[in-house]
Amino acid sequence: MCIQTELQRFQTEFNQTLVQTFSQLPNDIAPKLHQAMEYSVSNGGKRLRPFLLQIMAKVLAIDPKLIQPAAVALECIHSYSLVHDDLPAMDDDDLRRGKPTCHIQFDEAHAILAGDALQTLAFELLINADVQTDIKLSWVKILAQASGYQGMCGGQSLDLEAENKSVGLESLANIHSLKTGALLKAAVSMGCAAQRNLSDEQKQKFERFAELIGLAFQIQDDILDVTATTDALGKPQGSDQKSNKSTYPSLLGLTGAVHKAEQVFQSALEQIEDLPYNTQPLMDFAQFIIKRQH
Amino acid sequence: MCIQTELQRFQTEFNQTLVQTFSQLPNDIAPKLHQAMEYSVSNGGKRLRPFLLQIMAKVLAIDPKLIQPAAVALECIHSYSLVHDDLPAMDDDDLRRGKPTCHIQFDEAHAILAGDALQTLAFELLINADVQTDIKLSWVKILAQASGYQGMCGGQSLDLEAENKSVGLESLANIHSLKTGALLKAAVSMGCAAQRNLSDEQKQKFERFAELIGLAFQIQDDILDVTATTDALGKPQGSDQKSNKSTYPSLLGLTGAVHKAEQVFQSALEQIEDLPYNTQPLMDFAQFIIKRQH
Repeated sequence: MCIQTELQRFQTEFNQTLVQTFSQLPNDIAPKLHQAMEYSVSNGGKRLRPFLLQIMAKVLAIDPKLIQPAAVALECIHSYSLVHDDLPAMDDDDLRRGKPTCHIQFDEAHAILAGDALQTLAFELLINADVQTDIKLSWVKILAQASGYQGMCGGQSLDLEAENKSVGLESLANIHSLKTGALLKAAVSMGCAAQRNLSDEQKQKFERFAELIGLAFQIQDDILDVTATTDALGKPQGSDQKSNKSTYPSLLGLTGAVHKAEQVFQSALEQIEDLPYNTQPLMDFAQFIIKRQH
Repeated sequence: MCIQTELQRFQTEFNQTLVQTFSQLPNDIAPKLHQAMEYSVSNGGKRLRPFLLQIMAKVLAIDPKLIQPAAVALECIHSYSLVHDDLPAMDDDDLRRGKPTCHIQFDEAHAILAGDALQTLAFELLINADVQTDIKLSWVKILAQASGYQGMCGGQSLDLEAENKSVGLESLANIHSLKTGALLKAAVSMGCAAQRNLSDEQKQKFERFAELIGLAFQIQDDILDVTATTDALGKPQGSDQKSNKSTYPSLLGLTGAVHKAEQVFQSALEQIEDLPYNTQPLMDFAQFIIKRQH
């Protein structure tokens, strides 16, 4: 089955899992917050992080049911970060994938709270997961490190600080590795944590692969911000230029950025080509997120 | 030693622990975010939640060093909630304990991010704590439940929804039990989780005590918003009235609210008076937070 079809099938299933997750959360405690939280995760997202984790489960022969709480937790963290990023004080975006952002649909206060509570929910799901204790502990550790000061939040801060400034390639890579890469890597690390037979060296190769596809993903994102239409993106095209951000195309030119994405992509594949697992699904995933057009 | 002196001593020690915690977090990853996070917890707070946990440790004969990560985690969650509550989209407060709030001192974006990253840090501290695995798991579970949708965030949402509305006593108690009570109760529950000899019944009594002092604490907060000066509070006096909130004094009158606080206080003491532990320090704590004048 081609990866697009597989992703679509996964999205349908995963969206049902999300509906189930929220139906298990009593909606009468704080109804508006419940709505804002569910709205924020039900936004037609690509579900790339949970999908990557599911692919890792396939590659490492882990029961896909077992990693489900980790998949939902990853998406909760990703969704909360989008809700907060969209706020007027941050990127000030009214649209996300063609739909009103959370603070437009509800209000700013509930967008802040929905983000906060989605973050908490992520850790709650992990700690209540029906898996062995050491896996649970690893998951919480991985997700906390990837999403906090030393990961996603740190990257978001650096990204804000870099606006209207000229930033070099190394700084740009660092910003993206924290802001976007850390959570993609977490998806892979959470998969590795659920498979005890993995050696440290194998784990490191999977994680290095994740870091590199994270970087390639971001370069592609920068490229699409220049080349794609607002319609295809589901968000305003050219928003990087609008906010005067350094991007791969602005630093390397469009052709240079395309070349760089390809180079990083190849380097990612090299990491996992000799592993004693059928890593083809991961290679397909890498290909897919780098060749995507929106 | 009287409880005020003990609290002061604890605050000094605990503030040093906080400084240590942040010195262990590399400040060169995202310097501005690091500053905003540290600023947000170094705000001269009363440290009541960590203090309550330390008192629980004393009562239950738990090594105070052991519960330190839980104490810091509680304060990280409390601090993050204050930072987000103070935002223009929420309570819009410029001052907190006489100092500029985080979004005034830094900017709104960094106040949002500092709150986010402080929440993550709380879970990271718990999962990295040097305690037995089952205690760690209980701590994460307790803190997540107390601070998320079914706890503090839910309460904050209800509180916002209740502005400019007439709210009955039962709803008001529910709002406060989620918004303020849940985290105070978490301090007590985290202490209980670290002492295996406790029976379920004993645990419930400690937790019921915590719920009741949480309620009394909030009633006293409402009372002080009417009776104390801005100087003593370190925040603008009369802010509840300004935002047209239902409060205990507005529903019961000032005398009625004072009477209610006393009644809840007595009921809290009854919960723990027959327990086979020296619960005097908890009684002193309850007395202290209900008789406080700021």
